Amino acid sequence: MTTPTTIVIFGASGDLARRKLIPGLYNNFCKGRLPMPFSIIGYSRSDIPQADFQARMCDSVKEFSPSSFDETKWAEFAPSLDYSAGSFDDDVAFDKLNKKIQAIETELGGEGNRLYYLSIAPRFFRPVVAQLHEHGMSQEHNDLWRRVIVEKPFGHDLASAQALNNDLHKLLDEDQIYRIDHYLAKETVQNLLVFRFANTIFEPVWNRNYIDHVQITAAETVDVGHRAGYYDSSGVLRDMFQNHLMQLLALVAMEPPTSFQANAVRDEKGKVLKAIRPLTDETIQTQSVLSQYDGYLDAEGVAADSKTPTYAALELYIDNWRWKDVPFYLRSGKALEQKATEIIIWFKKPPHLMFPIPDDQEIASNYLAICIQPHEGLHLRFEVKVPDTDSDMRSVDMDFHYSDAFSKAEIPEAYERLQLEALEGDATLFTRSDGIEAAWTIIDGVIQRYASENAPAVGRYEIGSWGPSESDDMLGKGGREWRYGCGEHS
Amino acid sequence: MTTPTTIVIFGASGDLARRKLIPGLYNNFCKGRLPMPFSIIGYSRSDIPQADFQARMCDSVKEFSPSSFDETKWAEFAPSLDYSAGSFDDDVAFDKLNKKIQAIETELGGEGNRLYYLSIAPRFFRPVVAQLHEHGMSQEHNDLWRRVIVEKPFGHDLASAQALNNDLHKLLDEDQIYRIDHYLAKETVQNLLVFRFANTIFEPVWNRNYIDHVQITAAETVDVGHRAGYYDSSGVLRDMFQNHLMQLLALVAMEPPTSFQANAVRDEKGKVLKAIRPLTDETIQTQSVLSQYDGYLDAEGVAADSKTPTYAALELYIDNWRWKDVPFYLRSGKALEQKATEIIIWFKKPPHLMFPIPDDQEIASNYLAICIQPHEGLHLRFEVKVPDTDSDMRSVDMDFHYSDAFSKAEIPEAYERLQLEALEGDATLFTRSDGIEAAWTIIDGVIQRYASENAPAVGRYEIGSWGPSESDDMLGKGGREWRYGCGEHS
Repeated sequence: MTTPTTIVIFGASGDLARRKLIPGLYNNFCKGRLPMPFSIIGYSRSDIPQADFQARMCDSVKEFSPSSFDETKWAEFAPSLDYSAGSFDDDVAFDKLNKKIQAIETELGGEGNRLYYLSIAPRFFRPVVAQLHEHGMSQEHNDLWRRVIVEKPFGHDLASAQALNNDLHKLLDEDQIYRIDHYLAKETVQNLLVFRFANTIFEPVWNRNYIDHVQITAAETVDVGHRAGYYDSSGVLRDMFQNHLMQLLALVAMEPPTSFQANAVRDEKGKVLKAIRPLTDETIQTQSVLSQYDGYLDAEGVAADSKTPTYAALELYIDNWRWKDVPFYLRSGKALEQKATEIIIWFKKPPHLMFPIPDDQEIASNYLAICIQPHEGLHLRFEVKVPDTDSDMRSVDMDFHYSDAFSKAEIPEAYERLQLEALEGDATLFTRSDGIEAAWTIIDGVIQRYASENAPAVGRYEIGSWGPSESDDMLGKGGREWRYGCGEHS
Repeated sequence: MTTPTTIVIFGASGDLARRKLIPGLYNNFCKGRLPMPFSIIGYSRSDIPQADFQARMCDSVKEFSPSSFDETKWAEFAPSLDYSAGSFDDDVAFDKLNKKIQAIETELGGEGNRLYYLSIAPRFFRPVVAQLHEHGMSQEHNDLWRRVIVEKPFGHDLASAQALNNDLHKLLDEDQIYRIDHYLAKETVQNLLVFRFANTIFEPVWNRNYIDHVQITAAETVDVGHRAGYYDSSGVLRDMFQNHLMQLLALVAMEPPTSFQANAVRDEKGKVLKAIRPLTDETIQTQSVLSQYDGYLDAEGVAADSKTPTYAALELYIDNWRWKDVPFYLRSGKALEQKATEIIIWFKKPPHLMFPIPDDQEIASNYLAICIQPHEGLHLRFEVKVPDTDSDMRSVDMDFHYSDAFSKAEIPEAYERLQLEALEGDATLFTRSDGIEAAWTIIDGVIQRYASENAPAVGRYEIGSWGPSESDDMLGKGGREWRYGCGEHS
């Protein structure tokens, strides 16, 4: 008899469960990837009969994963969906939950493995983990695993992240904890490792000898909308930099791991994050730009004198042999012109140009644009000769689009993949405590300095622009400019 | 008053003049690129009145460059077309020709520059140059230039090429001689220099540390057809290797020239050709394959016991720091499956593979396919992660097609460009005596060895195949295989 697996979703009546988690589990089921036998238990405060919960989740799949919905498949899947009501610190409710799990496990063949998904507000992380521990629900024994997926945000600053890590480590081993950064599950992000380390041609030029600088952009067109109240206590540095942008930077800049094992990869990511030079009172003046879009202060829930940035750009340096003196420019913002996440590796110019070019012209640099969203792909800009001229040059693109090589159906939702990885015990796509804290060290440093008296001012930028001119100036002083590399030639 | 320029085409009633040379000159005229004022004089044995010659050439342009033909433009161009009849060693006819040029020059404003185009059989090269010299038509003076374009083939073997060079050098300076290899004027071939030396990202991996081997293919689908008699005395080594393939090899393998000046480029080409290790009696056994397509011996004009190869493949090595031990595989043949000229730079595998792959699988190598014809462009094959898997990999292509970036009208005929370069005194795209002789040294060495007793047999291959299996075996012993890189993904 095979060991049963139980997946408990805390926050089952929430948006994430409805939009991503249940559709993800259902799709994994359809692809035959869920461990058999299994059961899924939703847990949240609302009192919902099991049949109602199943019906609601059915509607969710129909709405958010319409192409994969299939009546017959759903009829096979639905009986494994159960529900248990309770608040997140309710001793009685957790006892009831545990008994329900045990009853299901008995029915399925005996004690099994358990995955707890904390799709809940961060203030509930501790109480839920404490309850799980108290009821003996999180202790591993007899080769049976207990894993906890922790949703973001993980901490509000360095101190709170450290405190949360410390508290979790009292009740769980690090390797039981799966901290979500769903950016890491995007195919192009995962592909970064393959791209860098399964090909021979890029790695030799992937260093300070050939790379002039790196740009990492995560631009959104939406403004803070109805999340304004929450957002104002967070801001773009916490919302986007500490997690997504720092993770992208780590994947771009890390040394080759010796293996694809989770800890080998996370060791290297940790090393490179720890090698980032923190901004000082001095460098913060020239290597950071914080800004708000026009009208942000008028949004409901935003303090009238709020200094919370909706846009930030940082110029960071990595103090190691590979990257010394190569600027990494990171930017992210809301209410910008385009929705785009991309990384641009900008190469140096050739050391010697044998071709005659007019005095007022310069040869263009090569760059590689790694497009993460919305159009996953790669663009390599290089120079060719213009036909019918002696040696005039023009920049052209070699490109590759995921959608040309792979059908849309092949590209899964990030959450679908993350569930599977956690079920398989592969933590490569999840962040480890040291990585989280290293990222916070840099970002919290910036936030702290902006709270001080001599901090640069938080500026303003136009809605629908590419951000404040100060950000362009930051690159401009080095003769560089922000590039939107994936949009230009797609 | 501007100095007039006279272009004399020897062999004006021939096929090349009709198909390429006159259309090329006409197109250069339409683009305003011919030096003004100019005149063009056709010279050949047939007695053709000037008006007839103009009418014939008009028909040629209509037939071979229909898109650019324009009545008004032609009416402007045609009066500059003149004709002079005579054989190629006729003292009287050359005197008449010289007088005609002088009369035209006087009319156009005084003594001018002269370009003599030898579009004639090689046995006439010497007598024509001798006549030009004798009548004082090839001596440069008063800053007026005299240039001679010499069509291929340049020599039948090393000795005859050296003899021809020696004889020409008695009457002409090397920098007056423009030896045609029209392959060098193809845009992708010219672009090779820009591609290699105006971009930063390729040159660092362009050496033995990263490249496993190089393949150069020039495949034709046509058989020898009505040229069988001529072809049987020549064969694929003389017809394709000594000129085109060796030139492509030189452009791929040469060190960066310090400038785009003709002699700087040709110095480097010469250096690398001279660094090719000649095949010995021993290495010829394993590093060469010569073959004839089935039925070649039945073609009219072919000797019944002919050993002339219609297909050849060579494995060559360049003895220098950059290329030591990197095989260069060259192949060319007639009656093959596809018409294609391309260069494949095949990279080594990554030194360490961090990803788990099944025991029976290997990671694919990166390669860069430089497609010269029929579809000019570049393909870069690399590995990406297959979506919805842990780390499965698939080979995909980043590609660039000239036709996407440049309109067809922008891409001129090779001859059009070569005329212009010669008129401008830029010899970069023409071969120098030392380059010709270095290429002959290698190719003649192969031909000589095949004439000896212990030579490998000349095999047979099927019409419409990719050549003989012996050629596949030659690569197979190193675990490699011929690739048709431009056709696969276009």
